[in-house]
Formats: sequence, C-alpha cells, structure tokens
Amino acid sequence: MSSPLKLYLAGPEVFLPDARAVLDEKAAMTRAYGFEPICPGDLVIPPAPTKHQFGLNISEIDESFMNRADGVIANLTPFRGIAADPGTVFELGYMCGAGKIVSAYTNVVETHFDRTLAWYDGKLTRDADGRMRGSDGHSLEDFEMIENLMLHGGVVRRGGHIAIHKASPDRLYHDLTAFEECLRVLAEKR
Amino acid sequence: MSSPLKLYLAGPEVFLPDARAVLDEKAAMTRAYGFEPICPGDLVIPPAPTKHQFGLNISEIDESFMNRADGVIANLTPFRGIAADPGTVFELGYMCGAGKIVSAYTNVVETHFDRTLAWYDGKLTRDADGRMRGSDGHSLEDFEMIENLMLHGGVVRRGGHIAIHKASPDRLYHDLTAFEECLRVLAEKR
Repeated sequence: MSSPLKLYLAGPEVFLPDARAVLDEKAAMTRAYGFEPICPGDLVIPPAPTKHQFGLNISEIDESFMNRADGVIANLTPFRGIAADPGTVFELGYMCGAGKIVSAYTNVVETHFDRTLAWYDGKLTRDADGRMRGSDGHSLEDFEMIENLMLHGGVVRRGGHIAIHKASPDRLYHDLTAFEECLRVLAEKR
Repeated sequence: MSSPLKLYLAGPEVFLPDARAVLDEKAAMTRAYGFEPICPGDLVIPPAPTKHQFGLNISEIDESFMNRADGVIANLTPFRGIAADPGTVFELGYMCGAGKIVSAYTNVVETHFDRTLAWYDGKLTRDADGRMRGSDGHSLEDFEMIENLMLHGGVVRRGGHIAIHKASPDRLYHDLTAFEECLRVLAEKR
C-alpha cells in the first residue's frame, strides 16, 4: 500500500473563534477520504522577542507544512471584503508555483464579477474600448470565475477541481459541503 | 557580461484607465536599473469561444511570464478593500513557491493590523486567551507587517526587500517611489 497523499488545508478558519474545532472537523473528513491532513493551525510557534519575529516564525512553519504536502485544498470564501483571505491566496499561489496538486472551493455562489459589481453599487461605465469600469476608473474582469483569473485559472488549468456551494450566512466559514466535494473529486482521481 | 535579471512586475496596474502608460513607466525604470522587465500587460491573448476560456488563456500566459522571470516585484497596495489585489497575491505566492527572487511594496503606511482594525471601526474585544477579535469573532493579526504574515514573511524570510511609502491618495496606484526603492535594493545586491 502506498502512503496517503498529504493535503494542506488552507483557509481563513484559523481566525475563527472555534478554529480548533473546525480544523479538527476538516482534518477528520480528510482522513475519512483516505488522505493525510496538514493544518496551518497545528503549529507550535517558537517564542520570539518581537511580534514581527513571531509572525516570521509562523510563516516559516506554515511554509514547511506546504513543502511537506502533496497538494492543497484552498477555501476561497470571501473574507473581510469581496476577496478571499490573502494568506490563503498566497498559499494557493505557492502550491501552484511548487507544482503541487491544487483544488479550491467557495461558500458563496456570487462570482468574482458579481462581487466586484456590488463593490461599485451595481454602477458601471464602458470606456472607449467597451471595457467595463467602476466609478474609480478601474476595469472589471468578467470571466465567470469565483475569484481573480490567476486563482481560478491556476486551479482549473492544472486539472484541479473548483467546488461552489451556497452556504447559509451563519455557516459561511463552517459549512464543509464544498470542501467535501473537493475531497471526493480528489479521491475519485486516485 | 551576464544577461540581465528578468523581473516580473506584479500589481493591480492592469486595471487602471492608463494601464499601458503606468506599465511602460515601470518597465522603463526597471531597464534603467539594469533589469529586464516582464509585464502582465504585455500579453497578446488568443481569442476564445467563451469568456471563461479567455480568462484561462490570460492565466496561462501570465504564468508563462512568471516562469520565464528570475524574480518579482509585487505591488501590494490595498485594492478594492483592505487587502492587496488577489491576483498579485497569488503571483507573489507563486514566485515564492517556485524559488524565485521576491520583493514587494505598498503605497500606504497603515499596517495590515491598522487596516483590519479600521474594518472593525476601531472596535475590538479580547477573548479568554487575550486574543484580539472583531465584532464577528474573527481574530486579528498584529505582527507589524504590511499584509498577512504569509506575504510579508514570505518576502522577508527569503531576504527580499519590503518598501513602504505614503503616496498621496490621487497617486495611490501611480506613485513609483516604493517600486523604485525595490529596484535600487535589488541592483545593490547584484
């Protein structure tokens, strides 16, 4: 028997009041599909003389976790705004750049374009080239994707799965339906 | 003479009304410091039958540009919210994962913590462990960094430079002072 694929579970869960419980639930589900979970929350951070150095220590350990993993499932559900958590986005990019297996999910059904349109209160203009622009003149992408094309495209072009699920607002960071869909697709591919 | 280092110029400039002019200015400045610029705006995208496929084509070309580059200078100035443009964040992560030279800058002096605090209108609570949390219960990082620790830490831990400059609001995406600082530091290291 070959050893199970190791999956890094990237997402904003680390910021939740019940981070430990949610990460444990994701880890248990990952094991149930025959994979080995690697959670950013599992780290023991060496003490540091400054806040800044402590942050660097977390970065180092999280990167070592990613280096040890064979792939990532990234939770791209919007966090503190219209976009995914930047830490998670960095990690998805890191795993793409390192040639690992990638997949991603979101717990909202509104596309990247829908959310950007809402950012501009639904008001757009067209420039001379027919390009859509917001009130600040910045152009909008409409590629029917859940996030900026580098993220969504980076996953799809590697044959990775994108799961989209409409979670209830009070379960936005706890609903694991889309996460489980990623696990199922990965398990079927093995 | 060795060939010049190739630098990928990541940032939200591609969305500006005068994207071409700003990217040209960044490219010229990059050449003036002895590097070869690679701009995401320089791509010619093959036509595609769907918007989605067109987005995938851009993703493919931008990644090929990154693969060709030796390093990246990422503009992490907040874009459409309190965080950097997700496409740029992905690209910084990608270049870290691929083992390239990395540096980053921002045109605001407020830290990641400052901006997150403002997101919560300056109102925080402390949980039982003394952790700072916003009104939604999500915890805040305070590591004296310009962005999420994975981004700032990923650059610093690789010996990369982080440039911070206070641009005037009307020049937020046009002021190249911090960008030039990254070029100067890279040139000095050569």
